[in-house]
Amino acid sequence: MSLAILPDKFFLRDAWYMVAWPSEVTAQEPLARTVLGDDLVLFRTAAGEAVALEDRCAHRLAPLSKGRIESDGIRCMYHGVKFGAVGQCLEIPAQPQGHPNMCVRRYPLVEKDGFLWVWMGIPEQADTTKIIDAPWAHDPRWAPSQGYLHVHAHMSLVADNLLDFGHLPFVHPNTVGSVQQADFSTQVTPLTEGVQTDRWYIDVPASRFHQSVGRFPGNVDAWHCFRWHLPAVMSLDSGSAPTGTGARDKPHGSREGAIEFHHIAALTPQDEDHTHYFWIHWRNFEVDNPEMTDIVHRNIMAAFAEDQAMVEAQHRAVRRGAQTVPKAIMADKALTIIRQQVAKRV
Amino acid sequence: MSLAILPDKFFLRDAWYMVAWPSEVTAQEPLARTVLGDDLVLFRTAAGEAVALEDRCAHRLAPLSKGRIESDGIRCMYHGVKFGAVGQCLEIPAQPQGHPNMCVRRYPLVEKDGFLWVWMGIPEQADTTKIIDAPWAHDPRWAPSQGYLHVHAHMSLVADNLLDFGHLPFVHPNTVGSVQQADFSTQVTPLTEGVQTDRWYIDVPASRFHQSVGRFPGNVDAWHCFRWHLPAVMSLDSGSAPTGTGARDKPHGSREGAIEFHHIAALTPQDEDHTHYFWIHWRNFEVDNPEMTDIVHRNIMAAFAEDQAMVEAQHRAVRRGAQTVPKAIMADKALTIIRQQVAKRV
Amino acid sequence: MSLAILPDKFFLRDAWYMVAWPSEVTAQEPLARTVLGDDLVLFRTAAGEAVALEDRCAHRLAPLSKGRIESDGIRCMYHGVKFGAVGQCLEIPAQPQGHPNMCVRRYPLVEKDGFLWVWMGIPEQADTTKIIDAPWAHDPRWAPSQGYLHVHAHMSLVADNLLDFGHLPFVHPNTVGSVQQADFSTQVTPLTEGVQTDRWYIDVPASRFHQSVGRFPGNVDAWHCFRWHLPAVMSLDSGSAPTGTGARDKPHGSREGAIEFHHIAALTPQDEDHTHYFWIHWRNFEVDNPEMTDIVHRNIMAAFAEDQAMVEAQHRAVRRGAQTVPKAIMADKALTIIRQQVAKRV
Repeated sequence: MSLAILPDKFFLRDAWYMVAWPSEVTAQEPLARTVLGDDLVLFRTAAGEAVALEDRCAHRLAPLSKGRIESDGIRCMYHGVKFGAVGQCLEIPAQPQGHPNMCVRRYPLVEKDGFLWVWMGIPEQADTTKIIDAPWAHDPRWAPSQGYLHVHAHMSLVADNLLDFGHLPFVHPNTVGSVQQADFSTQVTPLTEGVQTDRWYIDVPASRFHQSVGRFPGNVDAWHCFRWHLPAVMSLDSGSAPTGTGARDKPHGSREGAIEFHHIAALTPQDEDHTHYFWIHWRNFEVDNPEMTDIVHRNIMAAFAEDQAMVEAQHRAVRRGAQTVPKAIMADKALTIIRQQVAKRV
Repeated sequence: MSLAILPDKFFLRDAWYMVAWPSEVTAQEPLARTVLGDDLVLFRTAAGEAVALEDRCAHRLAPLSKGRIESDGIRCMYHGVKFGAVGQCLEIPAQPQGHPNMCVRRYPLVEKDGFLWVWMGIPEQADTTKIIDAPWAHDPRWAPSQGYLHVHAHMSLVADNLLDFGHLPFVHPNTVGSVQQADFSTQVTPLTEGVQTDRWYIDVPASRFHQSVGRFPGNVDAWHCFRWHLPAVMSLDSGSAPTGTGARDKPHGSREGAIEFHHIAALTPQDEDHTHYFWIHWRNFEVDNPEMTDIVHRNIMAAFAEDQAMVEAQHRAVRRGAQTVPKAIMADKALTIIRQQVAKRV
Repeated sequence: MSLAILPDKFFLRDAWYMVAWPSEVTAQEPLARTVLGDDLVLFRTAAGEAVALEDRCAHRLAPLSKGRIESDGIRCMYHGVKFGAVGQCLEIPAQPQGHPNMCVRRYPLVEKDGFLWVWMGIPEQADTTKIIDAPWAHDPRWAPSQGYLHVHAHMSLVADNLLDFGHLPFVHPNTVGSVQQADFSTQVTPLTEGVQTDRWYIDVPASRFHQSVGRFPGNVDAWHCFRWHLPAVMSLDSGSAPTGTGARDKPHGSREGAIEFHHIAALTPQDEDHTHYFWIHWRNFEVDNPEMTDIVHRNIMAAFAEDQAMVEAQHRAVRRGAQTVPKAIMADKALTIIRQQVAKRV
């Protein structure tokens, strides 16, 4: 295998990317955010519709994010040209006839299950059926913690990190992993546009995080099982159950006494050196306890800080180049599948 | 029209540029300043003559601005080579015969009306008749306030800002503009090497600045009328008069009760991303009141800070690129004329 | 002569470079250091052997300097792959059969006379006989002061500075030079791979540094005589003796009442804009006085700070380009010889 550590062209434009938490986008203050190198301005109309335009006035390219939101659009506060929700010009000061073909590029937006997705390809090809479902958002048996990281690394390196849980015993031995997980292998199954990965650790001590909230009397059977959706959304089941109860053989086995989580990670390239990382981590226990929401948040962020330090160091190293020739190992199977699928699509 | 927002080659070298206030250039401390990407060192001889040389020793290119001014020249303090006022080598330590053709590039300088102008083209083609006059500098009926801004933007964007006063009601609604100015049009007249622009606002509230120093009982007729001299010097008349007194029809009308200003703005490119912005703002009232000098200075700087924030944001946006295609509007007439004249000369 | 101030290709790879003080390299914490643009990781095995590998894991290029030293090698703490002292892969988690041809680039290291030298060329061509001797390190009649500077300049400019002592009266008039040294010439003798330079100042006041430790009643005969070894190691004798005692004519003359120093400067390019500068300055007086060790250290660092400021300013100037054409002077003889020798080898 000879895939480069940093692909030349890894970003799919014909895809939905998580762009912002819905609460970040208001009718009061424009939000500037960069996705795939495009600078966007996000705002809401008076009717509540979320809008994404390129963050450029179609007059002389001043940023609209320094403009003023009005009921039906946004006005550039340099020379006062105003644009509507699909980027069309609504008004030019001292020029009553307007301008027939002056418009700002617009980007389709969809708000769903607590995520706000932007389509970075040609607007006419935006296919909303490709947006993943997150039923946990509407299920009272699950309670969410959520967060965001701004990672100074190429999105593909952040994705690699999630696609290979073999790093857990080395990067996270004292948080969400444990050293006893090192020698377990992973079952990897290619999907049409993604991959499924199942990693079980049988009869091991629980990770520090799971032990602290699950208080297991002895060893556990723990798991990380996820589906990866191209280009970069992970939907993960994880948990720990008392060993020997057969959690792995569900539905036949029992998850009595187990703790379970569902996690969605949405990776959005800002540019070739930065990644937006949005995550929600639902749990199936103590769902009405806000303190537990904080505990889960802190534990996840502590582990992600460990990943971030390593991935950013790797990014800097790769950017600087190397004499050493990298070789794939068995644990790279899932990330290799995803990189090949993306390379094929790009 | 398809002029790019940032021209590829916009800098005229065969031109005079304001390089420093005369008081900045002394016989004690060399002054380093960069113009059109050239690093200059400025100093005075014992006789008081201002000198501009390239800020490079002709031995091994150490900066002369870290050297020592002597009565007839400047000595590099790395290996002690000394150069005279036209860049010729005067002395090499331990080498009595000197060096026949060792010299530093020199730049013609002219001190006039409180400005210090440098010629960036071939020295032999420097034509001092092209330097603008500033008679207000010698007229006791006028009193100056002056200032400097270091703008992190291409000079052409700073020039655009001055060439279109349509931005006043949007960028400066609470300082030197007012929202009621938005719908007035501008008369634009091309000159041989420049443009004349006349913008009148009839029967409007005075801007906050003019009202604070003019204390008008009612609406005013206000004006911004300037001549632009290639490449980037603006000579501007502005003022406010009680409405209906016919200020616009001068000499027939009356400017009784008016306040008048004359302003010179000299824009000097440091490089493609930075601009030196020198300005003097003369007034025709309270000329002996130093407090008024401060008030005018503060008001102008407050307005220019608003411009600077917008122009620097525009510069960053343009540098990052855009999908949106910019279109000219009617208000761009003057800046389009200037850009075409410069493009022709370059 | 038309050698550029900054050569395009000035770095010899087939050479030994001082990489770190031996005490910086331990079995506890990996040391990251960049040489000739290559990122190295340095550590010791449990047996005490110093090892230099490229600072890249051969799996996915994460930096080994964030890894963990084990008794026989270093383990990457991303996915746990482990490498031995010559860069060979020792272990891959969950992959018992290992990987036959997975290895990190290694660099030969030699520890000698208080220096740690790395060979940057092909390992098989490393010739340890080319490493210079420093007998002063083992001679009780000499006592060392030592230090390190990280210079933000191309190594060739730092080398130029050492190769022309004509800068002493201009850069160091109040530290290690004196203005009376300006008019003395230098005898320059090419060697096979280097140059010998002899510079004597007869009947002059001692430099401030030498006067402060030598307390001479009158003028001195002072000297700077060195051998330069390609690419960038200087071995320098310097000192001051009471004038007229014939120090210059040694062995016939007398150095009674003289103070003598031996200095080794080892310049190691970090990259094209940064240089590692290691130095040891031995003295032959008050060798058992630790306070004198500090005094020498402070005096040398004060002088080197003056050089550093000038060389970094020169580096910035050269990087920005120049209209002025640099010309060689007589004092450039030694540096010209070295540059020509290096150009021939590269």
